[in-house]
Amino acid sequence: MRVASLYGPVQEDLPIVEATLDSIKQTDFQVLAEMLSHALAGGGKRMRPALALLAARYRNYNLELLVPLAASVELLHTATLVHDDVIDVAASRRGRPTANSLYDNAASVMLGDFMFAHAADLVARTGNVRVIRLFARTLMHMAAGELDQDVSAFDWSRSVRDYLRRIGGKTASLIATACEGGAIISGAPEDWIEALRDYGQNLGMAFQIVDDLLDFTGNEAQMGKPVGSDLMQGTLTLPSLLLMEASPRDNPIKRLFQSRRGSKLRLEVAVRAVLESGAIARSREVADGYGKQALAALNRLPPNETTHTLIELVDYVLERDS
Amino acid sequence: MRVASLYGPVQEDLPIVEATLDSIKQTDFQVLAEMLSHALAGGGKRMRPALALLAARYRNYNLELLVPLAASVELLHTATLVHDDVIDVAASRRGRPTANSLYDNAASVMLGDFMFAHAADLVARTGNVRVIRLFARTLMHMAAGELDQDVSAFDWSRSVRDYLRRIGGKTASLIATACEGGAIISGAPEDWIEALRDYGQNLGMAFQIVDDLLDFTGNEAQMGKPVGSDLMQGTLTLPSLLLMEASPRDNPIKRLFQSRRGSKLRLEVAVRAVLESGAIARSREVADGYGKQALAALNRLPPNETTHTLIELVDYVLERDS
Repeated sequence: MRVASLYGPVQEDLPIVEATLDSIKQTDFQVLAEMLSHALAGGGKRMRPALALLAARYRNYNLELLVPLAASVELLHTATLVHDDVIDVAASRRGRPTANSLYDNAASVMLGDFMFAHAADLVARTGNVRVIRLFARTLMHMAAGELDQDVSAFDWSRSVRDYLRRIGGKTASLIATACEGGAIISGAPEDWIEALRDYGQNLGMAFQIVDDLLDFTGNEAQMGKPVGSDLMQGTLTLPSLLLMEASPRDNPIKRLFQSRRGSKLRLEVAVRAVLESGAIARSREVADGYGKQALAALNRLPPNETTHTLIELVDYVLERDS
Repeated sequence: MRVASLYGPVQEDLPIVEATLDSIKQTDFQVLAEMLSHALAGGGKRMRPALALLAARYRNYNLELLVPLAASVELLHTATLVHDDVIDVAASRRGRPTANSLYDNAASVMLGDFMFAHAADLVARTGNVRVIRLFARTLMHMAAGELDQDVSAFDWSRSVRDYLRRIGGKTASLIATACEGGAIISGAPEDWIEALRDYGQNLGMAFQIVDDLLDFTGNEAQMGKPVGSDLMQGTLTLPSLLLMEASPRDNPIKRLFQSRRGSKLRLEVAVRAVLESGAIARSREVADGYGKQALAALNRLPPNETTHTLIELVDYVLERDS
């Protein structure tokens, strides 16, 4: 099976990370335990912890330090999802109800805070202050990226450059940090650390662009959320922005946003317009471009089994359909 | 003036902490800069940073490490206030509009996250992993305490014991951590660290109980929030709990909560009932008891100018009227 060996040499170590994530749910406070169980059960592909482990394979692969690091990355990621869902007033994610649809907003904000704190404790277990500060700065980028997305909702003057900066902060920065953190902990030389960070940053950009594409081209059952949900939230992603660049004066997205709480019909018209334009193909080209840069970064690393897995991951990210 | 010398030997170092807090507002992202300015301008008494500095006065008072620590404590505190206001849907705090009344909830959640991340970065500048983990665990306690307050809103079966546990997590833990953190950074011996932590924990309990009293006895202009606002939020604090213990079957608080979105009149009746019962005086006794324990902890420390200031702070916390 493809996915089973997706993470190559670190595949068999991921269950240890999973066990650490499981242990977080152990608390006497029943409500919190339930909320944590729900938030962490989402599954997902655990790509970020896998990258943290992979990036450490070039030098000293010490699981005692790497497992807390990898668990911390995943927890940080999951905590931001919990807060994003509060912000988006999202009812479901990956086909499962979100925390804030099951509990109230207030409880979800606190759940996210608790998870951030736990992530900080986990990364501190590495004893590496450079990595701890890297994590703190990454969360600053992520929060600023989300804030930017929020304040720019329904703003059709946003450019492709703004979008790329935003997803750089919101998504790519944590993926880059997973790679950089693993490399630092392993004691890799500075040029390898930089190469792995560049790889992660570019992989993360490609990942988010494909995610945003799939919001138009994916099907609801596989994605676990309705097609066009970004537009519905007022979020302009690359395909929408490219369509708007092509017809700046009048286009169905502008009409959808002007109606603010757009009708379902207006949304369908806008989604169809994106699909029928060349915007999807051009977005895919942009994602492929980041994929190429990720591969180029790997040229600065010794070619081995880990490098091979990192190369394959680029293909996987670009080709995935959910 | 009393307040000018409130923090004794560290009073003149607080402006350096303030300058560090000011520097946090420097960001190119205009919306974020405005939000940070607003959140950090609240003033307040900066008690937590002062305690962090005071606790370090017994040994190696190194401002290069202590200023980031003190700024981190205040930032962590302010970040939790930003999230609390989202949760409480509070419109004002200390007479000023809250972030979430000026911006939207979503932006306030992200602002808080950004501030948490910045607090983590600041504490990491101490280079002391023990202190970093202490901070992370404190935020876990605080978030769990707030969550508990949220899930127990309008729950009149809550006991005084639950209340004490809740304020221990929500308030006292950070004040204890400010003291413990300062002591650790200064290189104090373990028994002094423990004494200072105990002092902070008990001072924090007294502080929150007085805060909760003032919600009944304070005046709106000084407090910057309406009298009885805790009851209005469905939060049972010590005076309410003592009244309910005295008349468990029928009392005006139970009637207020049963009506859920209680009328203004029901609230006034409940507040008056608390004021006319012995609940305020008995709550003050409980606060005094914690004050005594705080003083007792100081007996384990060498008596000097700092100890004198810490003793005076207990009086200040117990006697303040806003």
